[in-house]
Amino acid sequence: MYHHIKKLMYTVNVGIADPRFGNMLLEQFGGANGELAAAMQYSIQGLNCDDPERKDLLMDIGTEELSHLEIVGTLARMHLKPMKTHRDAAEVDPLIAIAGGGGVGLFNSMGDAWTADYLKITGELDVDLRSNIAAEARAKIVYERLIDFCDDAGSKDALQFLMTREITHMKAFAAALESLGKDPFSIGNIPPTAVLVDQYFNDSTGVGDDGETDARGPWNEGGKWKIVENSKLEHGVENLEGSNDRGADPRKVHGAKDSKKSTFKKKSA
Amino acid sequence: MYHHIKKLMYTVNVGIADPRFGNMLLEQFGGANGELAAAMQYSIQGLNCDDPERKDLLMDIGTEELSHLEIVGTLARMHLKPMKTHRDAAEVDPLIAIAGGGGVGLFNSMGDAWTADYLKITGELDVDLRSNIAAEARAKIVYERLIDFCDDAGSKDALQFLMTREITHMKAFAAALESLGKDPFSIGNIPPTAVLVDQYFNDSTGVGDDGETDARGPWNEGGKWKIVENSKLEHGVENLEGSNDRGADPRKVHGAKDSKKSTFKKKSA
Amino acid sequence: MYHHIKKLMYTVNVGIADPRFGNMLLEQFGGANGELAAAMQYSIQGLNCDDPERKDLLMDIGTEELSHLEIVGTLARMHLKPMKTHRDAAEVDPLIAIAGGGGVGLFNSMGDAWTADYLKITGELDVDLRSNIAAEARAKIVYERLIDFCDDAGSKDALQFLMTREITHMKAFAAALESLGKDPFSIGNIPPTAVLVDQYFNDSTGVGDDGETDARGPWNEGGKWKIVENSKLEHGVENLEGSNDRGADPRKVHGAKDSKKSTFKKKSA
Amino acid sequence: MYHHIKKLMYTVNVGIADPRFGNMLLEQFGGANGELAAAMQYSIQGLNCDDPERKDLLMDIGTEELSHLEIVGTLARMHLKPMKTHRDAAEVDPLIAIAGGGGVGLFNSMGDAWTADYLKITGELDVDLRSNIAAEARAKIVYERLIDFCDDAGSKDALQFLMTREITHMKAFAAALESLGKDPFSIGNIPPTAVLVDQYFNDSTGVGDDGETDARGPWNEGGKWKIVENSKLEHGVENLEGSNDRGADPRKVHGAKDSKKSTFKKKSA
Amino acid sequence: MYHHIKKLMYTVNVGIADPRFGNMLLEQFGGANGELAAAMQYSIQGLNCDDPERKDLLMDIGTEELSHLEIVGTLARMHLKPMKTHRDAAEVDPLIAIAGGGGVGLFNSMGDAWTADYLKITGELDVDLRSNIAAEARAKIVYERLIDFCDDAGSKDALQFLMTREITHMKAFAAALESLGKDPFSIGNIPPTAVLVDQYFNDSTGVGDDGETDARGPWNEGGKWKIVENSKLEHGVENLEGSNDRGADPRKVHGAKDSKKSTFKKKSA
Amino acid sequence: MYHHIKKLMYTVNVGIADPRFGNMLLEQFGGANGELAAAMQYSIQGLNCDDPERKDLLMDIGTEELSHLEIVGTLARMHLKPMKTHRDAAEVDPLIAIAGGGGVGLFNSMGDAWTADYLKITGELDVDLRSNIAAEARAKIVYERLIDFCDDAGSKDALQFLMTREITHMKAFAAALESLGKDPFSIGNIPPTAVLVDQYFNDSTGVGDDGETDARGPWNEGGKWKIVENSKLEHGVENLEGSNDRGADPRKVHGAKDSKKSTFKKKSA
Repeated sequence: MYHHIKKLMYTVNVGIADPRFGNMLLEQFGGANGELAAAMQYSIQGLNCDDPERKDLLMDIGTEELSHLEIVGTLARMHLKPMKTHRDAAEVDPLIAIAGGGGVGLFNSMGDAWTADYLKITGELDVDLRSNIAAEARAKIVYERLIDFCDDAGSKDALQFLMTREITHMKAFAAALESLGKDPFSIGNIPPTAVLVDQYFNDSTGVGDDGETDARGPWNEGGKWKIVENSKLEHGVENLEGSNDRGADPRKVHGAKDSKKSTFKKKSA
Repeated sequence: MYHHIKKLMYTVNVGIADPRFGNMLLEQFGGANGELAAAMQYSIQGLNCDDPERKDLLMDIGTEELSHLEIVGTLARMHLKPMKTHRDAAEVDPLIAIAGGGGVGLFNSMGDAWTADYLKITGELDVDLRSNIAAEARAKIVYERLIDFCDDAGSKDALQFLMTREITHMKAFAAALESLGKDPFSIGNIPPTAVLVDQYFNDSTGVGDDGETDARGPWNEGGKWKIVENSKLEHGVENLEGSNDRGADPRKVHGAKDSKKSTFKKKSA
Repeated sequence: MYHHIKKLMYTVNVGIADPRFGNMLLEQFGGANGELAAAMQYSIQGLNCDDPERKDLLMDIGTEELSHLEIVGTLARMHLKPMKTHRDAAEVDPLIAIAGGGGVGLFNSMGDAWTADYLKITGELDVDLRSNIAAEARAKIVYERLIDFCDDAGSKDALQFLMTREITHMKAFAAALESLGKDPFSIGNIPPTAVLVDQYFNDSTGVGDDGETDARGPWNEGGKWKIVENSKLEHGVENLEGSNDRGADPRKVHGAKDSKKSTFKKKSA
Repeated sequence: MYHHIKKLMYTVNVGIADPRFGNMLLEQFGGANGELAAAMQYSIQGLNCDDPERKDLLMDIGTEELSHLEIVGTLARMHLKPMKTHRDAAEVDPLIAIAGGGGVGLFNSMGDAWTADYLKITGELDVDLRSNIAAEARAKIVYERLIDFCDDAGSKDALQFLMTREITHMKAFAAALESLGKDPFSIGNIPPTAVLVDQYFNDSTGVGDDGETDARGPWNEGGKWKIVENSKLEHGVENLEGSNDRGADPRKVHGAKDSKKSTFKKKSA
Repeated sequence: MYHHIKKLMYTVNVGIADPRFGNMLLEQFGGANGELAAAMQYSIQGLNCDDPERKDLLMDIGTEELSHLEIVGTLARMHLKPMKTHRDAAEVDPLIAIAGGGGVGLFNSMGDAWTADYLKITGELDVDLRSNIAAEARAKIVYERLIDFCDDAGSKDALQFLMTREITHMKAFAAALESLGKDPFSIGNIPPTAVLVDQYFNDSTGVGDDGETDARGPWNEGGKWKIVENSKLEHGVENLEGSNDRGADPRKVHGAKDSKKSTFKKKSA
Repeated sequence: MYHHIKKLMYTVNVGIADPRFGNMLLEQFGGANGELAAAMQYSIQGLNCDDPERKDLLMDIGTEELSHLEIVGTLARMHLKPMKTHRDAAEVDPLIAIAGGGGVGLFNSMGDAWTADYLKITGELDVDLRSNIAAEARAKIVYERLIDFCDDAGSKDALQFLMTREITHMKAFAAALESLGKDPFSIGNIPPTAVLVDQYFNDSTGVGDDGETDARGPWNEGGKWKIVENSKLEHGVENLEGSNDRGADPRKVHGAKDSKKSTFKKKSA
């Protein structure tokens, strides 16, 4: 269960309210990478989690993000309040001004209502931790951009606090992932097809308008990588040498390759 | 520019059409972690990318995902086709049956229209690569679940191909991220506040209904970690010893801490 | 700030997991009248509220709803878990099964992602309290319907608890509204036009297919009510006798009635 | 069936077109509390209503709101028309300008497409009437804010008419609710648990940054109210004295409290 | 303004309520090609229309579609009503059952809330008429599919009526478009580039898995058509002979072709 | 499968970056009538198409639209880039600036995420071709409006190319529709009811505020048209003389007209 403590986790101070900046801040209140998204993603992953130790981690951080949501909301509220009475301010975000009376709502900086489509929750712990690491990295860069567009010292203080905590969480999630002791490229239980997994398909070719060409790097050469040119694929991957050899995979299945015709399976009664 | 080659990248074969499974497959056609999401996320990151080498990587994989979208769509179409004429089948997904005539549309398995809210694009290359690694992990586990619920050998072959390629892409994105040579917890340019970044806030406490308790692990003990109990936070983080010491950060700002009152800043003319 | 206590506010027990009922339960987890909607509506109203006493009320109940969200989620999770491994169960909600691995997500019973479009937040305290009273009434009837379709005694216990609390909250919000001491039909500051406000327009007429006819009741006769037939409106309300007489309203404005032509106002520099 | 009469219910006159104000007006055309939302909410409630008398009320007002939609749309159209040719105007709302050619569309002031997620329809008459009372209160305050930001006398006249009618409707819905003769806190058929319903949970505690503290008022003291401190809840509500005593409720169910384990119920054939 | 007549435009009769079919019917109530979409598309086009004659057409048909919405809603309501009390029925569409009490809501057959994103309104009369012709064709085929899945004679009667009217409207919109006397491929005012407009780009090549090959037909050969192979495009269209010759177009503009560098234009004060 | 060629189909040049115009351009990148919508609508129709010749057409144009998406995205990116560093620019579209770092995303000019709700795909070839003709007409007029608001010569060149191609596609789709050799008002297989289809219902009557009256034109008089006044409909269409005479339609059904009562049909086991 939850308990609310009236004191903010980080006290916010605003020297001069700036509705344009307040509107930008909504990205971290009701936006795609904002604090509600973080709070919900981690808390619901925690609710679904069968690993009691990492469940605790997910609930610790999920709860902290709720406290951050409150900080961002309070800060945005202070910057947006002039929208209630000043028409210049109201025109920055008429949804907040006219429909919300100058108060915050769960919208982003362009007035889009927050949606759970922003969340990444799979119920597979290591996969979820990866989604969380990426989510924290995104939140960090968004806070940095807000700081860069912010003129108010007190607001910057609060944003610096919030931005710092995203790195804290990123470290914690990375440590939790590593502590699972899994091969970083082993996801779930079914192994990938052996030869095929190391083939890099060169699907974008030629010379771009700015002179870009095909590039080589550790993502397609060295180690086991083998580059397959797009032209080699034109008869279908299944005709590439070795592409369907799954080695010792006990789940290997053989489908009839000669027909796209199929009969219809009704539900068994 | 794009060129379409009529041959599928991987030929699909279906023995017995199964509309219920076809409906599940829509998760990878028009769903949150599906092939259109992957194709758009990487291709648009590529379009925005100023690093010509990794831009090539993003375009290679973004383009491959378009070819995957076509494979999944063709496979789903074969399983869903009975919806046009069989009422039992139509009831599984009346949106596909009645509005779509048994053809695929950009919906997930519950009929939700695909939305760009699924995408994670920040324009910060290392951050985007992390989002991509997580996206590939999610796509892999979704394909595995589809294989586990699939009875048709030919369909499984195609899914095994697609699942394998997600691991290929995960490896490529991870190598590209590593090749940037950045500290894994350094995102953007503004450093986090020194002391605060290593504090782990214990925000979820007590004993759960299944006996869960506070847990310790490398995500909150060892190294520089320092656990801060929730009760210590009740006067605000800014009153924790050392929490605002940002060391040599030249961007340090000082806000007046004594007031939440603010004046209103109008836009400079 | 928030603190999470691992113990549920109400311990849930499930005898036999029923994925079909679990799916129905999602209405109260990620649905339009569910617990997240309640938690967010009240907490954000509280964040915006300038009346410290009723702000406390909004935060008390907003926080309790977060604890309810956790109860409903835990209960739904127990009913949905078979979706991970049982295909029959998975077909009830393939989004939960395939994308979520049998864990709950912020979706309703038809797989729609939760959206802040469900919320009603205006920043006008008495208006918000009315929205909350209505929201609690809706949540109560939804819990009742869930109880009516529930076979499991333990689940019913938890639902009875949650349903009861909605009435508690409805009473509290109603008392808070009454304590403001306002005329129930006085909203905001601008008075309605005196004569016009008591005119009931009879816009639906004739005899319906089931014999329905025009009805009279305290909503259109008695007191100050005056019924205006649709046919009387055909020259425009402004030509009804007395309709524009706003009495002593100091804000009365006079517009030129002779033209729909208008000139264009650019923003003042 | 419907009949359209070309004359507007209230003739609109605009002296000087103001695209910024026209954009704000869209809140009442395609916004969350706007006229389409009202028209659809009441008309669909009416369509579902088994009480012929109050069905007539719902259809009368639902139809009037359609006439209001036409008024607001005509007014907004007059203010937005310069968007077709003036770039300054177009920049206020490029969606209206570029995609709509300066004509109105079902969007709010921030360009969000109207969605039925705004509607509150439960099919329980007294609950629906409460939702309608709240909806009218919201619409009234939104019109007031629009009037406050409006410079044009003719536009204000029309808005005053529309605002007045919201109060008319609020009175009618309140009278209809009262005429049902129900206890205001009796919703549906299942009674709440007797003792528990009068307990007020103090879930938000401490002293806020602006000095807010726990408040007492008729919403938590006096009458039957009993305040329960958050700390008392930490062992679960079911362990609070008397909380599960439902008195004479014939529906009382007893769940086994000793286990969260459950077996899986398949659908009966 | 609008007037509601209680009699349905077409009386509906249902022999045996069929919740599965009722759920399918929602496609035409709250679905993408349904009656609300038609009513709103035409009525709002009408509201924006400066041609008084075709404005009358748009309002006539827009209003008829509102009457159709009422018919479909009444029919669906009769089929869905068992959802209130029968669990089997409720499982077909728990959103209607649990949240709506068995009454219709503005959802499609998969529970998606109606959205104005379905509408096509440009404010360019001939373009809008084309969108309407296509919309009527879509609505016709959806009604046909519903008839094909319908077992109830009375429901079929109503659907036959509604389906017939879509053809009526299609004819009327086509006649109105033709009456404008415009070249069918002349849209707006700026002419297309002369040579380029007759070039057909062959962007999909090769042999498909079912033996599909490049096809020729009146859409790419005969008349002025000239086929351009994808390989010819690889240096950019601007290097194709004649592609940029716009003939006598007085709006021809010349851009510097030598650089993608650009400077930043701030808004003129 | 797809192949990406790094060279743009049409090289874009921008003299002076204009973030306001770049924001407008997003309508054709992630907007309702934009290039992704076109690419997806045609390509998915093609994927579902059983007519191999017109499938080739759909894939040719669907693929070309992907190349257009890349052109528009590149052009928008060049105009939006200043958003990363210039606050004035960032305020035009803070979603692009703060969340996207000045890079394009799949949003329209008001920040709405692209949704598949924009698409019109029915799986009925002639119907889909009509939807495509309308879609191209809409895209053409949107490009024209963008050209009208564009100050940059290089940008205009690219827009002129894109606009021209929409007319090319419109011609190709129209030729493909005509080549099917169908009666333009024959959709699907079930014929409309004979007499009823030629009745024009006069549902909007009277004199409007600008003097509009009922209009006659080839859409309601001449040929077989017969105007039915709204007042004639008040007893229901089924009582109009001849309205239910479907002539030789073998599918004619007779429903019992005497009752709206119905019994409940459970799913056959």
